[in-house]
Amino acid sequence: MTQDATEDRVLAAVRERRELVNDAIEEELPMAEPERLYEATRYILEAGGKRLRPTAALLAAEALADVDPRSADYRSFPTLSGGSFDLMRSAVSVEVIQSFTLIHDDIMDEDDLRRGVPSVHREYDTETAILAGDTLYAKAFELLSDTGADPANGLEAVNLLASTCTRICEGQALDVDFEGRDDVTPEEYLEMVELKTAVLYGASAAIPAVLMGADDEVVDALYQYGVESGRAFQIQDDVLDLTVPSERLGKQRGSDLVEGKETLITLHARQQGVDVDGLVSADTPAEVTESAVDEAVARLEESGSIAYAREMATELTERSKRRLAVLPDNEARTLLRELADYLISRGY
Amino acid sequence: MTQDATEDRVLAAVRERRELVNDAIEEELPMAEPERLYEATRYILEAGGKRLRPTAALLAAEALADVDPRSADYRSFPTLSGGSFDLMRSAVSVEVIQSFTLIHDDIMDEDDLRRGVPSVHREYDTETAILAGDTLYAKAFELLSDTGADPANGLEAVNLLASTCTRICEGQALDVDFEGRDDVTPEEYLEMVELKTAVLYGASAAIPAVLMGADDEVVDALYQYGVESGRAFQIQDDVLDLTVPSERLGKQRGSDLVEGKETLITLHARQQGVDVDGLVSADTPAEVTESAVDEAVARLEESGSIAYAREMATELTERSKRRLAVLPDNEARTLLRELADYLISRGY
Repeated sequence: MTQDATEDRVLAAVRERRELVNDAIEEELPMAEPERLYEATRYILEAGGKRLRPTAALLAAEALADVDPRSADYRSFPTLSGGSFDLMRSAVSVEVIQSFTLIHDDIMDEDDLRRGVPSVHREYDTETAILAGDTLYAKAFELLSDTGADPANGLEAVNLLASTCTRICEGQALDVDFEGRDDVTPEEYLEMVELKTAVLYGASAAIPAVLMGADDEVVDALYQYGVESGRAFQIQDDVLDLTVPSERLGKQRGSDLVEGKETLITLHARQQGVDVDGLVSADTPAEVTESAVDEAVARLEESGSIAYAREMATELTERSKRRLAVLPDNEARTLLRELADYLISRGY
Repeated sequence: MTQDATEDRVLAAVRERRELVNDAIEEELPMAEPERLYEATRYILEAGGKRLRPTAALLAAEALADVDPRSADYRSFPTLSGGSFDLMRSAVSVEVIQSFTLIHDDIMDEDDLRRGVPSVHREYDTETAILAGDTLYAKAFELLSDTGADPANGLEAVNLLASTCTRICEGQALDVDFEGRDDVTPEEYLEMVELKTAVLYGASAAIPAVLMGADDEVVDALYQYGVESGRAFQIQDDVLDLTVPSERLGKQRGSDLVEGKETLITLHARQQGVDVDGLVSADTPAEVTESAVDEAVARLEESGSIAYAREMATELTERSKRRLAVLPDNEARTLLRELADYLISRGY
């Protein structure tokens, strides 16, 4: 298949699962009292998102169970020992955790917008946002502790999700800390990205395997698949901000640079002696010209910083795909490989 | 025994267990990186507290196992089916949840002090406080999912803790909502108190029983014991604020009234036609005189509001103690009964 055809196929797989995940979210997190609290939890869940984490979870389970994609019932999915469990509920639980972190991160980062709409603390208020996050946090554990899987596997999955949450908090704490420092190294930045973002991808791919009773080797491989492709995803985000035309990006190209956001690229450039703070003179993305961004990008190309990030994303993606060798060779596994490719090829 | 002797005995039991719980907290939540984040989690855990919830958990387990108090190893405690589990870890998990709610509540309520020291968001900052709460939240589930109990029981305990957290969030949301309303009924107030505070007492007493493999009847009875004595505790708090001399209270008597805090007593008085807002004219606890408080208390006695709260606390306590009939008749059960009494008799 051509690259475009491959991308179409994985996009179709993502889209198809997104619909099912959205339906399941509605079922698993019904409105309740107090209304304002539950409205706020629905608000973030309905604000969109590609549902990449639950999609990775569903595909990992399908590959491991060696069933044709979409042939088995996600609500009564086969385990490896002949039982069944609610795979969809476990997939929803990771998306719910993701939503909780978005709400709390937006409060901490004072971000007013999320997915093009006001963030929860802006649409409601900070109190409601803190509580909506805390409620989703609890709901995720309610869901994951009630999948009908073998209890020993269920408990292990809960433990994995809980330790993943601890790591996410550590990553966010590092991110907050880095804002006040000017000596962050690319290595520290990569560790932060791993904790803040990639571990939840890892947990998403690994949790279904845990629930199905897979060997540790398989669980670990799926976890690493998720962590590595998740890291690649975040690094590529920084590359795309500089290289994808503004109209495709949906925002001004180079806005990270204008806003002074530190990325793997800027940190690498600093190490190469580039005056990163002087790369663009505009103070807001609205003021910057395309030619000014072009010049800045040229400077970052020269220092090898964009290539450095791009190569790292590619290398991590390749490594993540090799992890899938532990799975049976089937269509779902191919889709997982393509999903990893898509994470760094997506033109937004 | 005289009432004083009984109180001495239960206080000794609480004190003894508090020391052990404090040691276990230190072991289970060691310092880690990033330092500032973990310092903030330690800060709240070390700020004190009577550890009443873990104490209730330990006593409930001892009563149920029918062992002499403090005779069994809390780290390798007998289940009802001949196994063993880490009871202390489960007791710590509820205290850790309690600490997380205190941190987030203080942010929401803009409370600058907690247990006589600056609250976490004042000592550190709001970002760190949100994250410290989120980290403790995760740690509680890490701990509870790793007690070595039978996995089916472990998973049920996790589910109970998670649904309890959901209820706590609902209770806090009601509390925030009530601040903007002037038509809250005593019934609504009681529901809020149950959700915000009492359910965690319920979970504290019930979780060890779940982990030990007790029948649903026993689990439910212990849960109700905790909920009812927890509700009594909160109601009595409001009574004590008006009736215990300032020097014993450690703060100005009647400060709830001065600060316009709505309680079961003020809500009842409003229903009786008392002009609650005009009861004291002082704006801060420092300005109010003892005689002004005396007059306000006399007015609330007249309307039957203090008696109403006091009777409700007593009635709930009696009901909570009757729940313990499902347990073997032993010393730990007696201590649980006395603990319920202590919760409403304590003179601070």
